[in-house]
Amino acid sequence: MGLFSKSIKTMDDLFVHALQDVYYAENQIVKALPKMIETASDPQLKHAFQTHLGETQNHVKRVEEVFRLYGQEPKGTSCPAIDGIIKEANEIIGDVDDKEVCDAAMLAAAQAVDHYEITRYGTLIAWAKQLGRNDCANMLHKNLEEEKTTDDKLSKLAEGNINRKAAA
Amino acid sequence: MGLFSKSIKTMDDLFVHALQDVYYAENQIVKALPKMIETASDPQLKHAFQTHLGETQNHVKRVEEVFRLYGQEPKGTSCPAIDGIIKEANEIIGDVDDKEVCDAAMLAAAQAVDHYEITRYGTLIAWAKQLGRNDCANMLHKNLEEEKTTDDKLSKLAEGNINRKAAA
Repeated sequence: MGLFSKSIKTMDDLFVHALQDVYYAENQIVKALPKMIETASDPQLKHAFQTHLGETQNHVKRVEEVFRLYGQEPKGTSCPAIDGIIKEANEIIGDVDDKEVCDAAMLAAAQAVDHYEITRYGTLIAWAKQLGRNDCANMLHKNLEEEKTTDDKLSKLAEGNINRKAAA
Repeated sequence: MGLFSKSIKTMDDLFVHALQDVYYAENQIVKALPKMIETASDPQLKHAFQTHLGETQNHVKRVEEVFRLYGQEPKGTSCPAIDGIIKEANEIIGDVDDKEVCDAAMLAAAQAVDHYEITRYGTLIAWAKQLGRNDCANMLHKNLEEEKTTDDKLSKLAEGNINRKAAA
């Protein structure tokens, strides 16, 4: 999550702040994925990144809808955690020459991003419910389920072909 | 994960780098938890953080054992992602005056840390298996299981008492 300030006093403030955080994260991922798609050499990994880009664009729209339901303008807040994970992915792309080792490292970075989102959506859903906003919780739940499905798919790739090829 | 360099050429290099990353992360968590224990006002949350501190100290020892099994000296490498998450937790402690809102925010930060570790251990286990090092995978698996149990425990707290009190 981004920098906190004295303006956070209530659960309502905290919910909006976390929503801004995940909105920033999803937008950063939309920007980062095209380079990862271009760099991936394994066709299954490339395809998984392509599918995830389409889903992430939908996640941005759903988070915007939650902002509207909650009576707020969609707005991002910078988040050192997601910046760190994406910075890492970019460094891998620049620094690891072996294509298969690069694939394995990008896959790990993508899973770190996914888990960051899984935890944030889990938190947001719990807070939305406590605030009596099941409408927001339901919308956020759709994004959570897709993130979990993506993580399962990436885990299968991690346990399967990609890492075996890189270790050969 | 920390900064990459041209020295990462093989899966073996990548595995050691990721091990250094998670070692750094576990050590940072050992340093961060005492302040979170001190600040938590909900007795269940305080207790969960206390238990997690003991577990995290064991995780550090297990990661050191994996280094030894792998013929490496235990060493950390800085990791912008975990630094970002912990920085956030410290800001919450300093900036959110309401004790119950502060508890809810610290709980969310703790879950973000846990998920970061869950994804890193998942990656390390997959890589250890691909490298034919089931001994390392088994050791790392113990840490993964404890992180998942902690996350479940924190999720129950998040859905239960703490957030309800904060939203009241």
